[in-house]
Amino acid sequence: MSLRIGVLGGGQLGRMMALAGYQLNLSFSFFDRAEDCPSAALGPRFGDDTYSTESLQAFIDSADVFTYEFENIPTAWVDMIAAQKPVFPGVKSLAVSQNRLNEKQLFSALNIPSARYHTIQCANDLTAAVAAIGLPLVVKTVTEGYDGKGQFLLREAEQIEQCWQLLGSSVPLIAEEFVQFRRELSIIAVRGQDGQTQFYPLAENHHHRGILSHSIVPAPHLDENTQLTAERYISSILQSLDHVGVLTLELFETRHGLVANETAPRVHNSGHWSIEGAHCSQFENHVRAVAGLPLGCTRAEKPSAMLNIIGEYPSSAQVLDITEAHLHLYGKTERPDRKIGHITVLADSYAELNGRIKKLADVLPNPMALNLSR
Amino acid sequence: MSLRIGVLGGGQLGRMMALAGYQLNLSFSFFDRAEDCPSAALGPRFGDDTYSTESLQAFIDSADVFTYEFENIPTAWVDMIAAQKPVFPGVKSLAVSQNRLNEKQLFSALNIPSARYHTIQCANDLTAAVAAIGLPLVVKTVTEGYDGKGQFLLREAEQIEQCWQLLGSSVPLIAEEFVQFRRELSIIAVRGQDGQTQFYPLAENHHHRGILSHSIVPAPHLDENTQLTAERYISSILQSLDHVGVLTLELFETRHGLVANETAPRVHNSGHWSIEGAHCSQFENHVRAVAGLPLGCTRAEKPSAMLNIIGEYPSSAQVLDITEAHLHLYGKTERPDRKIGHITVLADSYAELNGRIKKLADVLPNPMALNLSR
Repeated sequence: MSLRIGVLGGGQLGRMMALAGYQLNLSFSFFDRAEDCPSAALGPRFGDDTYSTESLQAFIDSADVFTYEFENIPTAWVDMIAAQKPVFPGVKSLAVSQNRLNEKQLFSALNIPSARYHTIQCANDLTAAVAAIGLPLVVKTVTEGYDGKGQFLLREAEQIEQCWQLLGSSVPLIAEEFVQFRRELSIIAVRGQDGQTQFYPLAENHHHRGILSHSIVPAPHLDENTQLTAERYISSILQSLDHVGVLTLELFETRHGLVANETAPRVHNSGHWSIEGAHCSQFENHVRAVAGLPLGCTRAEKPSAMLNIIGEYPSSAQVLDITEAHLHLYGKTERPDRKIGHITVLADSYAELNGRIKKLADVLPNPMALNLSR
Repeated sequence: MSLRIGVLGGGQLGRMMALAGYQLNLSFSFFDRAEDCPSAALGPRFGDDTYSTESLQAFIDSADVFTYEFENIPTAWVDMIAAQKPVFPGVKSLAVSQNRLNEKQLFSALNIPSARYHTIQCANDLTAAVAAIGLPLVVKTVTEGYDGKGQFLLREAEQIEQCWQLLGSSVPLIAEEFVQFRRELSIIAVRGQDGQTQFYPLAENHHHRGILSHSIVPAPHLDENTQLTAERYISSILQSLDHVGVLTLELFETRHGLVANETAPRVHNSGHWSIEGAHCSQFENHVRAVAGLPLGCTRAEKPSAMLNIIGEYPSSAQVLDITEAHLHLYGKTERPDRKIGHITVLADSYAELNGRIKKLADVLPNPMALNLSR
């Protein structure tokens, strides 16, 4: 009677999908070998130590339709599922987000501005890239890499050797122009199986040591044109990939307008505010799309901020004592640099919001707080 | 690491508590013998066919702190739990709501107006009650009884025999004055372990054949005094019972002011709107209280309506196509008069809200819709 969604991955994103989906009488199963993964309590878990084909088949048998909560998964898994049952978003979306070169080519084909780049196969290519694009250069692996991992900021030509030693084993690499940006923004959109599309307001994202520290939504001081441009960009990506579900586009705001950075074919950390801050959250909208249901309203009635809880838990009581603060804990053990929860706080104005963010910074034990209280 | 709450009962109320509590890294277990109960997917389930002492002990061993999602439970169960671990709300709250005579005496002791009544031990007492209070009389069992079950509306003295035949086996009974009321209201409040108390706005409740059909919150055309009076009444009940968790007080609005009808020591159907309509839902606030956390804000920013889905499911797609409608399905099979889900719809004004309620009535298959579309 209840449609079951199989989620590749059992982390906090899968957990929040399930918490949103149970309301609609959807049920969930997860493919994650960690017994204590954040989604473990919310549905049957599959996946043995080696992620054997047998355990993947048992997972496929357990659900009606499939999705994923992270993009760094073997395409062979998705191919095996897709041969038997529907998977949303489809393999096209996955192929683009799994490979920065594919992504760059897509941006280019759709006339979406993005940083100039050079493909790197050997150390000499790095020298050529410096000559062609100039310094600094951001050198990245083409596959994998998240939260600033698998990246090297090449400031001087003397660092080429060091960079190559660090990343050379992962060719091809990509060397990108270092974009001078005012701030980082992201737009999250959701597209249904019927092509219906909804856009969340742009988020302003702040990082600390490569990890998202906090987001403010709608991004302050934004002219309407920026939101519409971002919607146009992500809309063309969604259509070109025939994407179903949530897609995130990270952008740089520069003097010359928006520059696309990267995509994620899934719910995104910069969209966690939407659980309380939007009529219908990114998680509910994603599972609605995967289940073939109509999409919900993405509007935010007032400003909100999302603060990540990194490495160490704050006192729940101290957080909940702050007006309009909502606490989300993922059931993960504490570990440096690990995302173990988040807080969303709302307010009637940005000024009031900033006051509440400062209060939260005072009760957050992790170094993110330093970034917040400035 | 995660505090586990044991819930007596695994129905939709337990399910919605769990969906709210997982966010705070609380986890849940349930005592319900139905394998397919609505909470089954959200935590381990205990309770064999006979609800044996062994199965209750296994349930007690499974959690750190306990609560219940319905009040018609054997007090022996609660006593057995309370001898070993904390239970919120406590046995005092349960004793009052399980017995209409205790409840009447509490209202009286706290100077809360309620209907005049007579205790009934034999058929002659009914005759005496008619003489003392007049007709019509509402004759009710003292224990059990919900959704209009275990009640008889005595309109004429000739019906005494019929009434006695129906209810006489369940003495003592209570015969209550039939209160001429304008409408039924309910107030929901939550009290923390530290005595901190928060009140939700009054709901206006509509019934159809004894079952709650829909609620509108805040109750329209309400003067501030009515809300404050209701808060004073429920506040005195909470304090007198040293209640921890959510408590609901059903009230009649009459020409002479508010008249208390009954209490429920738990989250309540007339509070389901709060999931989307209040900053912090009755479910989250209840589990916060049980877990010893600070309470969340109970304010509603705009009007909302909650419509029960009774007996038969509507098309999810048709419901979700209506602006600001949120669908909640409990994973129960269809059966006449059974609450199997609800819809919450919000709007910026009561006029807009009424328009959306009418649209929802058009897509609801159950007879509740008749009541709505008038």
